[in-house]
Amino acid sequence: MTTTTPQPTATDLPDGGLHIQRIGALDFETGGHLPEAEIAYETWGRLNAEKSNAVLVLHALTGSTHVAASSGDPEEGWWEGVVGPGCAIDTNTWFVIAPNILGGCYGSTGPSSLDPEGAPWGSRFPFTTIRDSVHAEARLADALGIERFQAVIGGSMGGARALEWAAAYPERVAGMAVIACGAHSTAEQIAFAQAQVQSITLDPNFRGGDYYPGPTPDGGLGIARKIAHITYRSEPDMVSRFGRAAQPEENPFGEPARRQGRYQVESYLDYQAAKLVKRFDANSYLVLTEALMSHDVSRGRGTEAEVLGSIQVTPFIAAVESDRLYFPGQSQELARQLPGDVPVHMIDSPIGHDGFLTDLDQVAAEMTRVLGL
Amino acid sequence: MTTTTPQPTATDLPDGGLHIQRIGALDFETGGHLPEAEIAYETWGRLNAEKSNAVLVLHALTGSTHVAASSGDPEEGWWEGVVGPGCAIDTNTWFVIAPNILGGCYGSTGPSSLDPEGAPWGSRFPFTTIRDSVHAEARLADALGIERFQAVIGGSMGGARALEWAAAYPERVAGMAVIACGAHSTAEQIAFAQAQVQSITLDPNFRGGDYYPGPTPDGGLGIARKIAHITYRSEPDMVSRFGRAAQPEENPFGEPARRQGRYQVESYLDYQAAKLVKRFDANSYLVLTEALMSHDVSRGRGTEAEVLGSIQVTPFIAAVESDRLYFPGQSQELARQLPGDVPVHMIDSPIGHDGFLTDLDQVAAEMTRVLGL
Repeated sequence: MTTTTPQPTATDLPDGGLHIQRIGALDFETGGHLPEAEIAYETWGRLNAEKSNAVLVLHALTGSTHVAASSGDPEEGWWEGVVGPGCAIDTNTWFVIAPNILGGCYGSTGPSSLDPEGAPWGSRFPFTTIRDSVHAEARLADALGIERFQAVIGGSMGGARALEWAAAYPERVAGMAVIACGAHSTAEQIAFAQAQVQSITLDPNFRGGDYYPGPTPDGGLGIARKIAHITYRSEPDMVSRFGRAAQPEENPFGEPARRQGRYQVESYLDYQAAKLVKRFDANSYLVLTEALMSHDVSRGRGTEAEVLGSIQVTPFIAAVESDRLYFPGQSQELARQLPGDVPVHMIDSPIGHDGFLTDLDQVAAEMTRVLGL
Repeated sequence: MTTTTPQPTATDLPDGGLHIQRIGALDFETGGHLPEAEIAYETWGRLNAEKSNAVLVLHALTGSTHVAASSGDPEEGWWEGVVGPGCAIDTNTWFVIAPNILGGCYGSTGPSSLDPEGAPWGSRFPFTTIRDSVHAEARLADALGIERFQAVIGGSMGGARALEWAAAYPERVAGMAVIACGAHSTAEQIAFAQAQVQSITLDPNFRGGDYYPGPTPDGGLGIARKIAHITYRSEPDMVSRFGRAAQPEENPFGEPARRQGRYQVESYLDYQAAKLVKRFDANSYLVLTEALMSHDVSRGRGTEAEVLGSIQVTPFIAAVESDRLYFPGQSQELARQLPGDVPVHMIDSPIGHDGFLTDLDQVAAEMTRVLGL
């Protein structure tokens, strides 16, 4: 459900459903420019008159504004059970706002959006950093009259954005939750990201990024998703679920020439890829992947120790035990450099990085206690 | 240096240099057929009159026959220092033979080879399993008059071939060294392999595999190599070598639109990809990757415990401590199922899977002791 006119006032937003906020012209960190940008968002709960009960929840790479089911959109969200009346983030008290990231494809201005002449931005969409996305979110907060958030909360790329919020707008954030994400993207994360970006650009349908409204680079985006999905899951999870079983009614050893039959794990990854390709724009995937590669809270601000050491925002740091993309060690490195004695709360899930989505409940109560929610 | 006529007798082969052996028509495991196949190989040392001093050394996925420098080819080999006069595998005593795998592109019949009509096999090259490759190597041994090897030795895909030799031809092998490889390819290995295969087939130059003599699918093969290379190296290795430094004279934050400047780790992976693309055929990469996915010593032979429990060949099992593709746990699982109390010898290298190439010297003396070399 999309509402643009009339725009409800911030204190009167219904639960769920997509709202679109114009945030004006945007100048990007590396020189790009948009003459006009919009940020899409969903909300839960009611903003109080003092506008002092707002909580910002930030999604991961291919996430959306839909954190949890609501009267406006009953579909299950990606942190279902975490946000809602009586939930860890209790929307009887707190007003939760979840924006779609700048460059995304869930309502905010992105490469598939139209320029003032009515043509999709495509390859002309500006190179976007995590800082640019946070800057756009601050504009959204301005538009809603929210000067300060009680907490900014996110996992994976959402965690990168939460940390960047604390560094860029310390006066506007009381607390941050940085979950399954460190202070910067590592060589390993950049390496896997490069393979994904190049898979997309290799697809003949990509056409340099200007493929609208023609056929979309589904093959390349699908491969990117597969690479990513493997890294989001632990090796024991993959091995215990699929072993080397053949997909039912297929035989990987069936053909005398090129193999057609698949192993079950291949069918599973094909399915994951097909699901993403249906719901996500390849250019957005590319722009956001590069934004995630850019994540480095200390860039241009001093050493990482200096920058993290001066963060006064109340921190809540968590990691997934079995994460092999955002290793717990990175969260520990982040926590160690923050002022005071900051613990890393461990999510005890065997599935890997995705545990930040599936098993947040393990640390949610502690998170809301630390952040005063 | 390639010699085909006159074929020297097996007891009179010079050190190094590529020899080609015709092995006749081949029927493949899943129904494919070649009317005539050849296996390329290099040798070191002299085959004795009894032909009882032969050792088979088997290369990994993109390896070649060139295990070590020799008078016939002075270039450094992939196990330089392991094979040679006075080396762990002492060629003053032992006759070492290293074949190029069936389906490869270092002299053995592969997809880029010509059919009897003079056209490259391309997409018509038969689906090849590890068993097919071992079958072809047994034909080579037949042609050279070698009934039994003192040892069959390999790492990674070479290890899969060594294990398959022991299972398929137990009477022809006294000992096996299976290094950095388990009893079967896992869901994880298959998953990463699928992404690589699909990167190649996505490349518009691939043309279903029939790209000869046109432009080659370098982009897809390059991405495949990058994915593989990441998995061949440990995360700490990548992170400690490259961090998130920019490539000198490039700036990942330099452009207002699509990013051109690279991180150092990207440049490194581009370099690895470019090196492979120059030396390797994409169809061979695809065929051999699928062969490696097929690795399963127990397929059609009984349970893995039964098959491994009945292997009478003297085993030497080794793994790389930091390997995150062929986890040491898989080598342990393999060793546990072999008869007797079989230890797993650990290569203590921080770099990951590639440690089987760079640091074999740590276990080479023990390997030759166990295998009676």
